[in-house]
Amino acid sequence: VSGHALLILSRHAPDYERLIRAAALPQLTIAASPDGQRLSDTAAACDVIFGEPSLIAPVLTQLRSARWIQSTWAGVEPLLNPALRRDYVLTNARGVFGALMCEYVFGYMLAHERLMFAKRDAQRQGRWDPSPPGTLRGKQIGLLGVGTIGAALARTAKHFQMRVKGFTRSSEQCRDIDEYYHDDKTAFARGLDYLVCIVPNTAATRHLVDAALLEALPAHAVFINPGRGAAVDETALAAALTSGRLAGAVLDVFQTEPLPGDHPFWRIPTLIITSHTAALSAPADIVPLFIDNYRRLIADQPLRYQVDFDAGY
Amino acid sequence: VSGHALLILSRHAPDYERLIRAAALPQLTIAASPDGQRLSDTAAACDVIFGEPSLIAPVLTQLRSARWIQSTWAGVEPLLNPALRRDYVLTNARGVFGALMCEYVFGYMLAHERLMFAKRDAQRQGRWDPSPPGTLRGKQIGLLGVGTIGAALARTAKHFQMRVKGFTRSSEQCRDIDEYYHDDKTAFARGLDYLVCIVPNTAATRHLVDAALLEALPAHAVFINPGRGAAVDETALAAALTSGRLAGAVLDVFQTEPLPGDHPFWRIPTLIITSHTAALSAPADIVPLFIDNYRRLIADQPLRYQVDFDAGY
Repeated sequence: VSGHALLILSRHAPDYERLIRAAALPQLTIAASPDGQRLSDTAAACDVIFGEPSLIAPVLTQLRSARWIQSTWAGVEPLLNPALRRDYVLTNARGVFGALMCEYVFGYMLAHERLMFAKRDAQRQGRWDPSPPGTLRGKQIGLLGVGTIGAALARTAKHFQMRVKGFTRSSEQCRDIDEYYHDDKTAFARGLDYLVCIVPNTAATRHLVDAALLEALPAHAVFINPGRGAAVDETALAAALTSGRLAGAVLDVFQTEPLPGDHPFWRIPTLIITSHTAALSAPADIVPLFIDNYRRLIADQPLRYQVDFDAGY
Repeated sequence: VSGHALLILSRHAPDYERLIRAAALPQLTIAASPDGQRLSDTAAACDVIFGEPSLIAPVLTQLRSARWIQSTWAGVEPLLNPALRRDYVLTNARGVFGALMCEYVFGYMLAHERLMFAKRDAQRQGRWDPSPPGTLRGKQIGLLGVGTIGAALARTAKHFQMRVKGFTRSSEQCRDIDEYYHDDKTAFARGLDYLVCIVPNTAATRHLVDAALLEALPAHAVFINPGRGAAVDETALAAALTSGRLAGAVLDVFQTEPLPGDHPFWRIPTLIITSHTAALSAPADIVPLFIDNYRRLIADQPLRYQVDFDAGY
């Protein structure tokens, strides 16, 4: 019987191993997790790799038998380095972050509408603060990117009776988008109360959120980025916030993480920093993707969520 | 032609008058809004009164021709004073607060899950804080009261993939409730992550949230009250929070409002005070209720949302 050997490279390796073992997958041997970056011969000979791209990339040259790598993350940037080999199937995590992203985006939009931080400060001063909060109902949200996460956000926006604009390259498949845009970023930005950036990190999305886009937003708008830091021109964003041309921003991702201590973002009071925690990969969500793909592997079916190395997602 | 004369007694009288005039209702004269508490003879002779119960109750004896009073609020406590006349039809605002209540309750639940205040404090200290947030998905919410507001909350809870327990006197009409309770408060409270109190203020609901109910909640639970202050035994709640037997509370309403400066609630760091702003009556929401009821009045049809003075809602 020809079997498969699995190597798990993850900060949550014990959780992942427990959940994968519980599935009792046929023809699968699980190699011991490595200590440090030196792989054992058994580990290096595995044909199936599962884990975080940041941990896999540094040892990719040692993984000479790797045929399939399943990323626990949506973003696979570390594995897209052109110096690395690409002679294997790379699949990423998709379709599992929508619910968490909704909690993040709608949580912070509601915090903004309900004046939560100002009311908290008033309370700390012992002050009864009846200032009237706003409401999401009737407001307009713009989604920069309408993949599975964008579709989940659009559906929740509809639940809260918002109007939804979507900016995509071409597709118009999500029915919860009221108005699609494909080229004109400034027309898309006009009239938005909230702009949410959920594009993948590719050459085409680099600095998609630039001075022109930010200038087209109304002054009361709030920009939310749980996507990728590279999609934002951080200098232009800092200028828009500092001058008050933009009311606020909620940022989970940055060009450099952790955000350097001397970065101007730390000193902008209308900016909220959430330290790349918007949608952390939960083992219970990710393992079913691996199991589904493993069953496809042994049935000689195409794997789901294959990454196109050139497109970058 | 026998017509009707309307008196508006509201802090937002100009907004209400503008919206009602725009509807051009037949046979309706609108009296000038009074300056202070002394009504003109024309005002005192109006048969239809529209406004805030707190402004209507003090002049009710002068309103000798009042036949129908439409409250802009859901709660009508000031008009339930047994010393006041009850020989008129009292209707309240219902069915319009669900969306705002959802924004309030889910906003604060998400703020709790996402550690928003702790992350805000970390940011103010210039600290990158990757501590993992929680999620509403899979958590359990208990609704104390399942009227139109409870039904709206249940629907939003389902959107966020929560499990929903409902405590009602008898009805089981809302399909988004997974499990109904009618008598056993402690069985209802067991296992809840969030308890939300949305009962009206009646003799039967006074101190419904008492030491026994709070003790039955898990220690990690959060109590949210956007309903009525009288439903809560504030001494018991303060004790549960101070001892750490209960993780947190979000309170919009209190026995006495504004909350007195020496109230122990001001000194409990796990308690959030939102100063009776959870679901403010918006003229654009309330006027359609009045218009609908006015059309019923002139068509000799029963008015909607009539208050039962004895039941108290």
